[in-house]
Amino acid sequence: MTYCLGIISAHGLVMAADSRTNAGVDYISAYRKMFDFSVPGDRTIVLCTSGNLSITQSVILSVEQDLGSLDVDNLHSHRSMYDIACYLGQKLRSIQAREREWLEKDRIDSSCNILLGGQVRGQQTELYMLYRQGNFIKAMPETPFLQIGEIKYGRPILDRTLTFKTSIEDAAKCALLSFDSTMKSNVSVGPPIDLVMYHADSFEIRHQLTFHQGDPYLLQVRREWESFLKTAFDRMPPIDWDRNTDIAPDRTEFSGFLDG
Amino acid sequence: MTYCLGIISAHGLVMAADSRTNAGVDYISAYRKMFDFSVPGDRTIVLCTSGNLSITQSVILSVEQDLGSLDVDNLHSHRSMYDIACYLGQKLRSIQAREREWLEKDRIDSSCNILLGGQVRGQQTELYMLYRQGNFIKAMPETPFLQIGEIKYGRPILDRTLTFKTSIEDAAKCALLSFDSTMKSNVSVGPPIDLVMYHADSFEIRHQLTFHQGDPYLLQVRREWESFLKTAFDRMPPIDWDRNTDIAPDRTEFSGFLDG
Repeated sequence: MTYCLGIISAHGLVMAADSRTNAGVDYISAYRKMFDFSVPGDRTIVLCTSGNLSITQSVILSVEQDLGSLDVDNLHSHRSMYDIACYLGQKLRSIQAREREWLEKDRIDSSCNILLGGQVRGQQTELYMLYRQGNFIKAMPETPFLQIGEIKYGRPILDRTLTFKTSIEDAAKCALLSFDSTMKSNVSVGPPIDLVMYHADSFEIRHQLTFHQGDPYLLQVRREWESFLKTAFDRMPPIDWDRNTDIAPDRTEFSGFLDG
Repeated sequence: MTYCLGIISAHGLVMAADSRTNAGVDYISAYRKMFDFSVPGDRTIVLCTSGNLSITQSVILSVEQDLGSLDVDNLHSHRSMYDIACYLGQKLRSIQAREREWLEKDRIDSSCNILLGGQVRGQQTELYMLYRQGNFIKAMPETPFLQIGEIKYGRPILDRTLTFKTSIEDAAKCALLSFDSTMKSNVSVGPPIDLVMYHADSFEIRHQLTFHQGDPYLLQVRREWESFLKTAFDRMPPIDWDRNTDIAPDRTEFSGFLDG
Protein backbone atom coordinates (compact mmCIF):
# COMPACT_ATOMS: atom_id res chain seq x y z
CA MET A 1 0.00 0.00 0.00
CA THR A 2 0.96 3.62 -0.40
CA TYR A 3 0.02 6.88 1.22
CA CYS A 4 0.66 10.21 -0.52
CA LEU A 5 -0.68 13.56 0.55
CA GLY A 6 -0.73 17.02 -0.97
CA ILE A 7 -1.75 20.15 0.97
CA ILE A 8 -2.30 23.51 -0.65
CA SER A 9 -2.62 26.79 1.21
CA ALA A 10 -2.50 30.48 0.48
CA HIS A 11 1.17 30.28 1.42
CA GLY A 12 2.30 27.37 -0.71
CA LEU A 13 2.32 23.64 -1.00
CA VAL A 14 3.28 20.58 1.04
CA MET A 15 3.67 17.13 -0.47
CA ALA A 16 4.52 13.89 1.27
CA ALA A 17 4.85 10.24 0.26
CA ASP A 18 5.81 7.01 1.93
CA SER A 19 8.13 4.50 0.25
CA ARG A 20 6.78 1.10 1.16
CA THR A 21 5.82 -1.19 -1.68
CA ASN A 22 4.49 -4.67 -1.45
CA ALA A 23 3.49 -7.50 -3.70
CA GLY A 24 2.00 -9.65 -0.96
CA VAL A 25 3.11 -9.44 2.66
CA ASP A 26 6.18 -11.56 1.93
CA TYR A 27 7.66 -9.21 -0.66
CA ILE A 28 8.06 -5.73 0.73
CA SER A 29 10.47 -3.19 -0.70
CA ALA A 30 11.18 0.52 -0.59
CA TYR A 31 10.56 2.58 -3.72
CA ARG A 32 10.50 6.30 -4.08
CA LYS A 33 7.00 7.56 -4.88
CA MET A 34 7.78 11.28 -5.00
CA PHE A 35 9.40 12.87 -8.04
CA ASP A 36 10.66 16.41 -8.41
CA PHE A 37 10.63 17.81 -11.97
CA SER A 38 11.13 21.44 -11.00
CA VAL A 39 13.09 24.02 -12.97
CA PRO A 40 14.28 26.51 -10.35
CA GLY A 41 13.21 30.03 -11.22
CA ASP A 42 10.63 28.90 -13.78
CA ARG A 43 8.40 26.19 -12.37
CA THR A 44 7.95 23.83 -9.46
CA ILE A 45 6.53 20.41 -10.30
CA VAL A 46 6.28 17.56 -7.81
CA LEU A 47 4.55 14.24 -8.55
CA CYS A 48 3.53 11.49 -6.13
CA THR A 49 2.23 8.15 -7.33
CA SER A 50 0.21 5.28 -5.91
CA GLY A 51 -1.13 2.03 -7.30
CA ASN A 52 0.39 -0.50 -9.67
CA LEU A 53 4.11 0.22 -9.63
CA SER A 54 4.76 -1.00 -13.17
CA ILE A 55 2.14 1.47 -14.44
CA THR A 56 3.29 4.44 -12.37
CA GLN A 57 6.95 3.79 -13.19
CA SER A 58 6.09 3.67 -16.89
CA VAL A 59 4.39 7.06 -16.53
CA ILE A 60 7.42 8.56 -14.77
CA LEU A 61 9.93 6.98 -17.18
CA SER A 62 7.93 8.17 -20.17
CA VAL A 63 7.66 11.67 -18.68
CA GLU A 64 11.44 11.69 -18.19
CA GLN A 65 11.99 10.47 -21.74
CA ASP A 66 9.82 13.28 -23.11
CA LEU A 67 11.97 15.79 -21.22
CA GLY A 68 14.97 14.62 -23.21
CA SER A 69 13.26 15.14 -26.57
CA LEU A 70 13.26 18.63 -27.99
CA ASP A 71 10.39 18.07 -30.39
CA VAL A 72 7.70 16.73 -28.04
CA ASP A 73 5.50 18.39 -25.47
CA ASN A 74 6.78 17.77 -21.97
CA LEU A 75 6.50 18.86 -18.35
CA HIS A 76 8.68 21.88 -19.01
CA SER A 77 7.02 23.07 -22.22
CA HIS A 78 3.47 23.43 -20.92
CA ARG A 79 2.38 26.89 -19.85
CA SER A 80 0.18 26.01 -16.84
CA MET A 81 -0.42 23.38 -14.19
CA TYR A 82 -3.74 22.70 -15.88
CA ASP A 83 -1.99 21.88 -19.16
CA ILE A 84 0.51 19.71 -17.28
CA ALA A 85 -2.37 17.82 -15.67
CA CYS A 86 -3.88 17.26 -19.15
CA TYR A 87 -0.49 16.05 -20.44
CA LEU A 88 -0.11 13.60 -17.51
CA GLY A 89 -3.67 12.39 -18.01
CA GLN A 90 -2.93 11.57 -21.65
CA LYS A 91 0.31 9.87 -20.62
CA LEU A 92 -1.59 7.74 -18.11
CA ARG A 93 -4.23 6.85 -20.68
CA SER A 94 -1.72 5.71 -23.29
CA ILE A 95 0.08 3.50 -20.75
CA GLN A 96 -3.16 2.07 -19.39
CA ALA A 97 -4.24 1.35 -22.98
CA ARG A 98 -1.02 -0.55 -23.58
CA GLU A 99 -0.87 -2.47 -20.28
CA ARG A 100 -4.33 -2.98 -18.87
CA GLU A 101 -5.54 -5.79 -21.11
CA TRP A 102 -2.47 -7.89 -20.29
CA LEU A 103 -2.76 -7.35 -16.56
CA GLU A 104 -6.48 -8.13 -16.53
CA LYS A 105 -5.84 -11.52 -18.10
CA ASP A 106 -4.30 -12.44 -14.75
CA ARG A 107 -6.68 -10.29 -12.70
CA ILE A 108 -3.90 -7.91 -11.74
CA ASP A 109 -5.17 -4.52 -10.68
CA SER A 110 -3.78 -1.81 -12.97
CA SER A 111 -5.29 1.08 -11.05
CA CYS A 112 -3.17 4.03 -9.97
CA ASN A 113 -3.36 7.68 -8.96
CA ILE A 114 -1.04 10.63 -9.31
CA LEU A 115 -0.76 13.79 -7.23
CA LEU A 116 0.56 16.79 -9.13
CA GLY A 117 1.56 19.89 -7.18
CA GLY A 118 3.44 22.99 -8.12
CA GLN A 119 3.48 26.38 -9.77
CA VAL A 120 4.35 27.72 -13.20
CA ARG A 121 5.74 31.28 -13.23
CA GLY A 122 2.98 33.84 -13.67
CA GLN A 123 0.34 31.51 -12.24
CA GLN A 124 -0.99 30.28 -8.89
CA THR A 125 0.31 27.34 -6.88
CA GLU A 126 -1.99 24.42 -7.65
CA LEU A 127 -2.58 20.83 -6.61
CA TYR A 128 -4.25 18.14 -8.73
CA MET A 129 -5.14 14.48 -8.38
CA LEU A 130 -5.28 12.30 -11.48
CA TYR A 131 -7.44 9.20 -11.62
CA ARG A 132 -6.42 6.04 -13.47
CA GLN A 133 -8.82 7.07 -16.23
CA GLY A 134 -6.66 10.13 -16.88
CA ASN A 135 -9.22 12.67 -15.67
CA PHE A 136 -8.36 14.83 -12.70
CA ILE A 137 -9.61 17.14 -9.96
CA LYS A 138 -7.99 20.23 -8.46
CA ALA A 139 -7.79 21.01 -4.74
CA MET A 140 -9.85 24.05 -3.79
CA PRO A 141 -9.70 26.28 -0.69
CA GLU A 142 -12.75 24.59 0.91
CA THR A 143 -10.86 21.27 1.20
CA PRO A 144 -7.23 22.19 0.78
CA PHE A 145 -5.75 18.72 0.52
CA LEU A 146 -5.78 15.65 -1.71
CA GLN A 147 -4.76 12.12 -0.77
CA ILE A 148 -4.05 8.94 -2.73
CA GLY A 149 -3.52 5.34 -1.62
CA GLU A 150 -4.39 4.41 1.97
CA ILE A 151 -6.26 7.64 2.68
CA LYS A 152 -8.67 7.06 5.54
CA TYR A 153 -6.60 6.57 8.70
CA GLY A 154 -4.74 9.82 8.14
CA ARG A 155 -7.73 11.93 7.24
CA PRO A 156 -9.31 12.83 10.62
CA ILE A 157 -6.31 14.98 11.64
CA LEU A 158 -6.47 16.81 8.29
CA ASP A 159 -10.21 17.42 8.63
CA ARG A 160 -9.75 18.86 12.11
CA THR A 161 -6.64 20.96 11.58
CA LEU A 162 -6.23 22.29 8.05
CA THR A 163 -7.72 25.34 6.38
CA PHE A 164 -6.55 27.26 3.35
CA LYS A 165 -5.07 29.82 5.74
CA THR A 166 -2.87 27.32 7.61
CA SER A 167 0.82 28.19 7.40
CA ILE A 168 2.78 25.73 5.30
CA GLU A 169 5.05 25.03 8.27
CA ASP A 170 1.95 23.85 10.16
CA ALA A 171 0.69 22.04 7.07
CA ALA A 172 3.98 20.10 6.93
CA LYS A 173 3.70 19.20 10.63
CA CYS A 174 0.10 18.11 10.03
CA ALA A 175 1.22 15.97 7.08
CA LEU A 176 3.64 14.06 9.32
CA LEU A 177 0.92 13.52 11.93
CA SER A 178 -1.35 12.21 9.19
CA PHE A 179 1.41 9.80 8.14
CA ASP A 180 1.97 8.76 11.73
CA SER A 181 -1.71 7.84 12.13
CA THR A 182 -1.62 5.89 8.87
CA MET A 183 1.57 4.01 9.72
CA LYS A 184 0.21 3.20 13.17
CA SER A 185 -2.88 1.51 11.68
CA ASN A 186 -1.48 0.04 8.44
CA VAL A 187 1.97 -1.55 8.45
CA SER A 188 2.02 -1.61 4.65
CA VAL A 189 2.54 2.17 4.73
CA GLY A 190 6.05 2.88 5.98
CA PRO A 191 9.20 4.98 5.94
CA PRO A 192 11.23 6.44 4.37
CA ILE A 193 8.78 9.36 4.21
CA ASP A 194 9.59 12.06 1.68
CA LEU A 195 8.38 15.53 2.62
CA VAL A 196 8.56 18.69 0.53
CA MET A 197 7.50 22.21 1.54
CA TYR A 198 7.23 24.87 -1.15
CA HIS A 199 6.68 28.59 -0.51
CA ALA A 200 4.38 30.10 -3.15
CA ASP A 201 6.14 32.35 -5.70
CA SER A 202 9.60 31.22 -4.66
CA PHE A 203 10.00 28.90 -7.68
CA GLU A 204 12.48 26.90 -5.71
CA ILE A 205 12.06 23.98 -3.33
CA ARG A 206 14.12 25.03 -0.35
CA HIS A 207 12.72 22.54 2.14
CA GLN A 208 12.75 18.83 1.67
CA LEU A 209 13.44 16.00 4.06
CA THR A 210 13.48 12.22 4.09
CA PHE A 211 12.45 10.53 7.33
CA HIS A 212 13.88 7.04 7.70
CA GLN A 213 12.72 4.21 9.96
CA GLY A 214 13.44 5.19 13.56
CA ASP A 215 13.87 8.87 12.72
CA PRO A 216 14.13 10.80 16.02
CA TYR A 217 11.58 13.41 14.93
CA LEU A 218 9.05 10.77 13.84
CA LEU A 219 9.54 8.98 17.16
CA GLN A 220 9.17 12.25 19.08
CA VAL A 221 6.02 13.13 17.11
CA ARG A 222 4.48 9.75 17.86
CA ARG A 223 5.40 9.83 21.55
CA GLU A 224 4.24 13.40 22.18
CA TRP A 225 1.10 13.10 20.07
CA GLU A 226 0.04 9.94 21.88
CA SER A 227 0.74 11.58 25.20
CA PHE A 228 -1.31 14.66 24.22
CA LEU A 229 -4.15 12.45 22.99
CA LYS A 230 -4.19 10.51 26.25
CA THR A 231 -4.31 13.71 28.26
CA ALA A 232 -7.07 15.08 26.03
CA PHE A 233 -8.95 11.80 26.30
CA ASP A 234 -8.76 11.84 30.08
CA ARG A 235 -10.12 15.38 30.13
CA MET A 236 -13.12 14.62 27.93
CA PRO A 237 -16.37 14.80 29.87
CA PRO A 238 -17.68 11.43 31.11
CA ILE A 239 -20.90 10.05 29.66
CA ASP A 240 -23.99 10.72 31.74
CA TRP A 241 -25.61 7.29 31.69
CA ASP A 242 -28.57 8.35 33.80
CA ARG A 243 -29.98 10.88 31.39
CA ASN A 244 -33.30 10.36 29.72
CA THR A 245 -33.07 8.19 26.62
CA ASP A 246 -35.89 7.41 24.19
CA ILE A 247 -36.11 5.33 21.09
CA ALA A 248 -35.41 7.56 18.12
CA PRO A 249 -38.59 9.06 16.69
CA ASP A 250 -36.95 9.19 13.24
CA ARG A 251 -36.06 5.52 13.12
CA THR A 252 -38.05 2.83 11.39
CA GLU A 253 -37.50 -0.82 12.18
CA PHE A 254 -37.70 -3.60 9.65
CA SER A 255 -39.66 -2.17 6.80
CA GLY A 256 -37.36 -1.68 3.84
CA PHE A 257 -34.56 -3.14 1.83
CA LEU A 258 -31.61 -0.79 1.68
CA ASP A 259 -27.89 -1.21 1.91
CA GLY A 260 -26.96 -0.51 5.52
CA MET B 1 -22.59 3.06 4.98
CA THR B 2 -22.50 1.81 8.54
CA TYR B 3 -20.09 1.91 11.43
CA CYS B 4 -20.33 -0.55 14.31
CA LEU B 5 -17.74 -1.09 17.02
CA GLY B 6 -17.25 -3.59 19.79
CA ILE B 7 -14.68 -3.16 22.57
CA ILE B 8 -13.81 -5.88 25.05
CA SER B 9 -11.85 -5.37 28.23
CA ALA B 10 -11.12 -7.18 31.43
CA HIS B 11 -14.03 -5.24 32.90
CA GLY B 12 -16.70 -5.89 30.30
CA LEU B 13 -17.96 -4.93 26.90
CA VAL B 14 -18.93 -1.82 24.96
CA MET B 15 -20.87 -1.94 21.72
CA ALA B 16 -21.92 0.93 19.48
CA ALA B 17 -23.67 1.31 16.15
CA ASP B 18 -24.84 4.14 13.97
CA SER B 19 -28.27 4.10 12.30
CA ARG B 20 -27.77 5.68 8.91
CA THR B 21 -28.71 3.59 5.91
CA ASN B 22 -28.50 4.57 2.30
CA ALA B 23 -29.31 3.20 -1.12
CA GLY B 24 -27.62 5.97 -3.05
CA VAL B 25 -27.14 9.47 -1.68
CA ASP B 26 -30.75 10.37 -2.50
CA TYR B 27 -32.31 7.66 -0.35
CA ILE B 28 -31.10 7.88 3.20
CA SER B 29 -33.01 6.45 6.14
CA ALA B 30 -32.46 5.52 9.76
CA TYR B 31 -32.50 1.84 10.72
CA ARG B 32 -31.46 0.28 13.97
CA LYS B 33 -28.33 -1.84 13.55
CA MET B 34 -27.95 -2.96 17.18
CA PHE B 35 -30.04 -5.76 18.63
CA ASP B 36 -30.23 -6.91 22.23
CA PHE B 37 -31.14 -10.58 22.74
CA SER B 38 -30.12 -10.77 26.38
CA VAL B 39 -31.81 -12.84 29.06
CA PRO B 40 -31.11 -10.94 32.30
CA GLY B 41 -29.47 -13.18 34.85
CA ASP B 42 -28.53 -15.86 32.32
CA ARG B 43 -26.83 -14.34 29.28
CA THR B 44 -26.02 -11.05 27.59
CA ILE B 45 -26.14 -11.10 23.78
CA VAL B 46 -25.82 -7.97 21.64
CA LEU B 47 -25.58 -8.04 17.84
CA CYS B 48 -24.59 -5.23 15.46
CA THR B 49 -24.92 -5.59 11.70
CA SER B 50 -23.47 -3.93 8.62
CA GLY B 51 -23.81 -4.50 4.90
CA ASN B 52 -26.80 -5.36 2.76
CA LEU B 53 -29.83 -4.51 4.90
CA SER B 54 -32.10 -7.12 3.34
CA ILE B 55 -29.56 -9.82 4.25
CA THR B 56 -28.87 -8.60 7.79
CA GLN B 57 -32.58 -8.10 8.48
CA SER B 58 -33.27 -11.63 7.29
CA VAL B 59 -30.66 -12.90 9.72
CA ILE B 60 -32.16 -10.97 12.63
CA LEU B 61 -35.76 -11.91 11.71
CA SER B 62 -34.81 -15.56 11.39
CA VAL B 63 -32.95 -15.45 14.72
CA GLU B 64 -36.07 -13.94 16.32
CA GLN B 65 -38.27 -16.59 14.74
CA ASP B 66 -36.04 -19.36 16.11
CA LEU B 67 -36.44 -17.87 19.59
CA GLY B 68 -40.19 -18.43 19.33
CA SER B 69 -39.82 -22.10 18.42
CA LEU B 70 -39.35 -24.54 21.26
CA ASP B 71 -37.92 -27.33 19.14
CA VAL B 72 -35.04 -25.54 17.36
CA ASP B 73 -31.63 -24.38 18.50
CA ASN B 74 -31.60 -20.67 19.17
CA LEU B 75 -29.64 -17.84 20.78
CA HIS B 76 -30.89 -18.83 24.19
CA SER B 77 -30.31 -22.56 23.94
CA HIS B 78 -26.60 -22.52 23.13
CA ARG B 79 -24.20 -23.01 25.99
CA SER B 80 -21.38 -20.63 24.97
CA MET B 81 -20.63 -17.52 22.92
CA TYR B 82 -18.59 -19.75 20.64
CA ASP B 83 -21.63 -21.96 19.94
CA ILE B 84 -23.74 -18.83 19.37
CA ALA B 85 -21.17 -17.57 16.84
CA CYS B 86 -21.36 -20.94 15.04
CA TYR B 87 -25.17 -20.77 15.03
CA LEU B 88 -25.13 -17.22 13.60
CA GLY B 89 -22.58 -18.25 10.99
CA GLN B 90 -24.84 -21.06 9.82
CA LYS B 91 -27.80 -18.67 9.78
CA LEU B 92 -25.81 -16.23 7.64
CA ARG B 93 -24.76 -19.01 5.26
CA SER B 94 -28.30 -20.27 4.72
CA ILE B 95 -29.57 -16.75 3.97
CA GLN B 96 -26.64 -15.96 1.68
CA ALA B 97 -27.29 -19.25 -0.12
CA ARG B 98 -30.93 -18.28 -0.65
CA GLU B 99 -30.36 -14.61 -1.66
CA ARG B 100 -26.94 -14.14 -3.20
CA GLU B 101 -27.61 -15.58 -6.64
CA TRP B 102 -30.60 -13.28 -7.15
CA LEU B 103 -28.75 -10.18 -6.01
CA GLU B 104 -25.74 -10.94 -8.18
CA LYS B 105 -27.93 -11.06 -11.30
CA ASP B 106 -28.27 -7.29 -10.83
CA ARG B 107 -24.77 -6.82 -9.43
CA ILE B 108 -26.10 -5.99 -5.98
CA ASP B 109 -23.55 -6.51 -3.24
CA SER B 110 -24.80 -9.07 -0.73
CA SER B 111 -21.89 -8.72 1.64
CA CYS B 112 -22.45 -8.12 5.33
CA ASN B 113 -20.80 -8.47 8.73
CA ILE B 114 -22.06 -9.11 12.23
CA LEU B 115 -20.56 -8.20 15.59
CA LEU B 116 -21.55 -10.52 18.43
CA GLY B 117 -20.75 -9.51 21.98
CA GLY B 118 -21.82 -10.83 25.32
CA GLN B 119 -21.46 -13.42 28.03
CA VAL B 120 -23.12 -16.71 28.90
CA ARG B 121 -23.30 -17.51 32.62
CA GLY B 122 -20.28 -19.53 33.74
CA GLN B 123 -18.12 -18.22 30.88
CA GLN B 124 -16.06 -15.17 29.95
CA THR B 125 -17.31 -12.01 28.23
CA GLU B 126 -16.49 -12.41 24.54
CA LEU B 127 -16.64 -10.45 21.30
CA TYR B 128 -16.80 -11.96 17.80
CA MET B 129 -16.98 -10.67 14.25
CA LEU B 130 -18.70 -12.80 11.61
CA TYR B 131 -17.78 -12.51 7.95
CA ARG B 132 -20.31 -12.85 5.15
CA GLN B 133 -18.96 -16.35 4.56
CA GLY B 134 -20.18 -17.34 8.02
CA ASN B 135 -16.73 -17.80 9.53
CA PHE B 136 -15.70 -15.59 12.41
CA ILE B 137 -12.88 -14.23 14.54
CA LYS B 138 -12.78 -13.44 18.26
CA ALA B 139 -11.31 -10.28 19.80
CA MET B 140 -8.24 -11.00 21.91
CA PRO B 141 -6.53 -8.90 24.61
CA GLU B 142 -3.77 -7.75 22.20
CA THR B 143 -6.31 -5.88 20.02
CA PRO B 144 -9.36 -5.54 22.22
CA PHE B 145 -11.81 -4.22 19.62
CA LEU B 146 -13.53 -5.25 16.40
CA GLN B 147 -15.12 -2.94 13.84
CA ILE B 148 -17.43 -3.48 10.88
CA GLY B 149 -18.53 -1.14 8.07
CA GLU B 150 -16.68 2.16 7.63
CA ILE B 151 -13.83 1.21 9.94
CA LYS B 152 -10.79 3.30 9.06
CA TYR B 153 -11.52 6.89 10.05
CA GLY B 154 -12.41 5.87 13.59
CA ARG B 155 -9.51 3.51 14.12
CA PRO B 156 -6.58 5.80 15.03
CA ILE B 157 -8.17 6.87 18.32
CA LEU B 158 -8.76 3.20 19.22
CA ASP B 159 -5.18 2.25 18.37
CA ARG B 160 -3.82 5.03 20.56
CA THR B 161 -6.13 4.75 23.54
CA LEU B 162 -7.43 1.25 24.19
CA THR B 163 -5.86 -1.65 25.97
CA PHE B 164 -7.45 -4.70 27.54
CA LYS B 165 -7.08 -2.96 30.90
CA THR B 166 -9.02 0.17 29.90
CA SER B 167 -12.06 0.73 32.11
CA ILE B 168 -15.33 0.19 30.25
CA GLU B 169 -16.39 3.75 31.11
CA ASP B 170 -13.32 4.96 29.21
CA ALA B 171 -13.94 2.42 26.46
CA ALA B 172 -17.45 3.86 26.00
CA LYS B 173 -16.05 7.41 25.81
CA CYS B 174 -13.46 6.21 23.31
CA ALA B 175 -16.20 4.56 21.24
CA LEU B 176 -18.03 7.88 20.93
CA LEU B 177 -14.81 9.66 19.89
CA SER B 178 -14.26 6.99 17.27
CA PHE B 179 -17.80 7.59 15.99
CA ASP B 180 -17.22 11.35 15.99
CA SER B 181 -14.11 10.96 13.79
CA THR B 182 -16.01 8.68 11.43
CA MET B 183 -19.04 10.97 11.16
CA LYS B 184 -16.76 13.95 10.58
CA SER B 185 -15.13 12.29 7.54
CA ASN B 186 -18.04 10.25 6.14
CA VAL B 187 -21.54 11.74 6.09
CA SER B 188 -23.06 8.37 5.30
CA VAL B 189 -22.35 7.34 8.89
CA GLY B 190 -24.73 9.24 11.15
CA PRO B 191 -26.88 9.38 14.27
CA PRO B 192 -28.81 8.06 16.08
CA ILE B 193 -25.87 6.28 17.71
CA ASP B 194 -26.73 3.34 19.94
CA LEU B 195 -24.29 2.69 22.76
CA VAL B 196 -24.30 -0.17 25.25
CA MET B 197 -21.94 -0.71 28.18
CA TYR B 198 -21.92 -4.10 29.92
CA HIS B 199 -20.09 -4.90 33.15
CA ALA B 200 -18.64 -8.40 33.07
CA ASP B 201 -20.45 -10.95 35.25
CA SER B 202 -23.44 -8.67 35.84
CA PHE B 203 -25.63 -10.53 33.31
CA GLU B 204 -27.66 -7.38 32.88
CA ILE B 205 -27.26 -4.41 30.57
CA ARG B 206 -27.60 -1.48 32.94
CA HIS B 207 -26.16 1.19 30.66
CA GLN B 208 -27.50 1.98 27.24
CA LEU B 209 -28.02 5.28 25.47
CA THR B 210 -29.19 6.55 22.10
CA PHE B 211 -27.54 9.73 20.84
CA HIS B 212 -29.69 11.62 18.33
CA GLN B 213 -28.67 14.24 15.80
CA GLY B 214 -27.64 17.40 17.66
CA ASP B 215 -27.23 15.56 20.96
CA PRO B 216 -25.61 17.97 23.47
CA TYR B 217 -23.02 15.42 24.59
CA LEU B 218 -22.01 14.58 21.01
CA LEU B 219 -21.69 18.31 20.25
CA GLN B 220 -19.66 18.86 23.42
CA VAL B 221 -17.39 15.91 22.59
CA ARG B 222 -16.76 17.24 19.09
CA ARG B 223 -16.12 20.82 20.26
CA GLU B 224 -13.82 19.90 23.14
CA TRP B 225 -11.96 17.19 21.22
CA GLU B 226 -11.25 19.54 18.33
CA SER B 227 -10.11 22.21 20.74
CA PHE B 228 -7.79 19.72 22.51
CA LEU B 229 -6.42 18.53 19.17
CA LYS B 230 -5.68 22.07 18.07
CA THR B 231 -3.87 22.80 21.32
CA ALA B 232 -1.92 19.55 21.03
CA PHE B 233 -1.11 20.30 17.40
CA ASP B 234 0.22 23.75 18.27
CA ARG B 235 2.45 22.23 20.96
CA MET B 236 3.98 19.63 18.68
CA PRO B 237 7.64 20.34 17.97
CA PRO B 238 8.33 22.16 14.69
CA ILE B 239 10.20 20.35 11.94
CA ASP B 240 13.91 21.07 11.77
CA TRP B 241 14.34 21.67 8.04
CA ASP B 242 18.06 22.33 8.30
CA ARG B 243 19.06 18.94 9.56
CA ASN B 244 21.14 16.60 7.51
CA THR B 245 19.11 14.59 5.04
CA ASP B 246 20.33 11.82 2.79
CA ILE B 247 18.68 9.71 0.18
CA ALA B 248 17.56 6.49 1.81
CA PRO B 249 20.22 3.79 1.63
CA ASP B 250 17.51 1.11 1.66
CA ARG B 251 15.61 2.45 -1.31
CA THR B 252 15.90 1.21 -4.85
CA GLU B 253 14.70 3.33 -7.72
CA PHE B 254 13.05 1.95 -10.81
CA SER B 255 14.08 -1.63 -10.88
CA GLY B 256 11.05 -3.78 -10.18
CA PHE B 257 7.42 -4.35 -10.84
CA LEU B 258 5.44 -4.38 -7.65
CA ASP B 259 2.15 -2.96 -6.52
CA GLY B 260 2.94 0.31 -4.80
